[in-house]
Amino acid sequence: MTASSTQPTTARLSINQATTETSSTEELLDACAQAGVGYVAPWRHKFIDGDVRRTRRALDARSIRASSLCRGGFFTGTRPPAEAASDNRRAVEEAAELGSPVLVLVCGPVTETGAAAALEAITRGIEALLPHAIDHDVILAVEPFHPMFAAERSAIIRLDQATDLVTGLDHPNLGIAVDTYHVWWDPDLAQALERASAKTVAVHVADWLVPTQSLLQGRGLPGDGIIDLAGILENIARGGYDGPVEVEVLNGEVWSRQASDVVLDVQQRLMPLLERIGAAV
Amino acid sequence: MTASSTQPTTARLSINQATTETSSTEELLDACAQAGVGYVAPWRHKFIDGDVRRTRRALDARSIRASSLCRGGFFTGTRPPAEAASDNRRAVEEAAELGSPVLVLVCGPVTETGAAAALEAITRGIEALLPHAIDHDVILAVEPFHPMFAAERSAIIRLDQATDLVTGLDHPNLGIAVDTYHVWWDPDLAQALERASAKTVAVHVADWLVPTQSLLQGRGLPGDGIIDLAGILENIARGGYDGPVEVEVLNGEVWSRQASDVVLDVQQRLMPLLERIGAAV
Repeated sequence: MTASSTQPTTARLSINQATTETSSTEELLDACAQAGVGYVAPWRHKFIDGDVRRTRRALDARSIRASSLCRGGFFTGTRPPAEAASDNRRAVEEAAELGSPVLVLVCGPVTETGAAAALEAITRGIEALLPHAIDHDVILAVEPFHPMFAAERSAIIRLDQATDLVTGLDHPNLGIAVDTYHVWWDPDLAQALERASAKTVAVHVADWLVPTQSLLQGRGLPGDGIIDLAGILENIARGGYDGPVEVEVLNGEVWSRQASDVVLDVQQRLMPLLERIGAAV
Repeated sequence: MTASSTQPTTARLSINQATTETSSTEELLDACAQAGVGYVAPWRHKFIDGDVRRTRRALDARSIRASSLCRGGFFTGTRPPAEAASDNRRAVEEAAELGSPVLVLVCGPVTETGAAAALEAITRGIEALLPHAIDHDVILAVEPFHPMFAAERSAIIRLDQATDLVTGLDHPNLGIAVDTYHVWWDPDLAQALERASAKTVAVHVADWLVPTQSLLQGRGLPGDGIIDLAGILENIARGGYDGPVEVEVLNGEVWSRQASDVVLDVQQRLMPLLERIGAAV
């Protein structure tokens, strides 16, 4: 994508598809192409006609790239480990077919066996999946989640835990996805972002609303909440990250709007942030 | 209260009044007296006829003690600092009038000036309140909250932060309230409980439900969720804590039940936990 003089292209901006959950994938892609947004982050359940190749063609036709694919993981939880392993291998293949450099991992919850056992199961699961990711030239991105999701989505709830895990397995095809919504509360965030910087391969942005009405669908568009988004993004940029910046806002009110409206709104909101971190084209 | 041979008295059990929010204070006190529960933790807005002395007489008449008073704090947030200071001094006086050894502090949220500024304002607020607490023989208890409340209730969201603050100001009239619901997610919980042990002056119990439907009213009765309550309580007991154990469950379904039913239910659930930590009478 190239920028016109009147319509600056936010080439580094990516719209995570969860932001327009109730719109079709074509609607989202058309809106991004129209606005000059360089990336989207597709979700697997939203592939056009359930077909990853058809989705890839729809991206290519609009010169839009996938910044990441959502999602693999759930190494712990209710599904059997063999099913998780098989599904995660398929997710890696889909990321490759989509041309997505990154597969985001939501690692799975703390279960009755406790947090330490969950962390161990997650580590072993990632270790087993990594060769397949290397074969397909896909980077697995461990995403730490907000602690309120520890029992349902991710036993990894501090950025430092992700850094420890990823540094321990140490491979270029394994990194960290940093989401402002999930990490902002950490009292040691500045240091944690620095520690994670060499391994940060994806950045997600959402704001924390006051009050927050829903655990799952209560995220805010950038600027509507209380997170110091500029401070976090500047810290990440100083650490060397210069890849796409995904906006991922799960919010029932946002979902009631047209994709084209949401994309333009997000673009307006991100422009000053991206300019501030020296990233706007 | 004394135990009969068939009805063991849970003398160390305390029912936090938020567990029976929709029942009257008299209903709660009668239910506790009937069941042989030794303590309640009253809330200030539930004083009988708004009168702390009348509430004290109602406690005394049933030989029930206040384990703690809820609550003071909110050193940050929307109310002016002078108003917070004045209200907190009044809360200290009410704790003394009630015969409650402890006043629980919900310290106030992270605001637009950021987490570090909030922590500083909280520390200064506690420092200014402490002499009044000493004068009234009341212990101020800093309660770390779950990170999902950082923007609305408490900038102190890790137990280690509370320990740092309380250790820094270092006075017998300043301690920590540990609530299983607020701290369970912490990857470093075992060490954090040990660090906090010398300053732990109150213990609250609630469980984490899967799924959690509400940030505010989605807490679980002990045993209904996934927190290792026995493990946490044993850790706290090993650290030397031998005071009351409060059950504080904010849950819309629980609130729809009679106080007498809830108290007996909580008592049944806590009995094995209290026995396990060697605390049942």
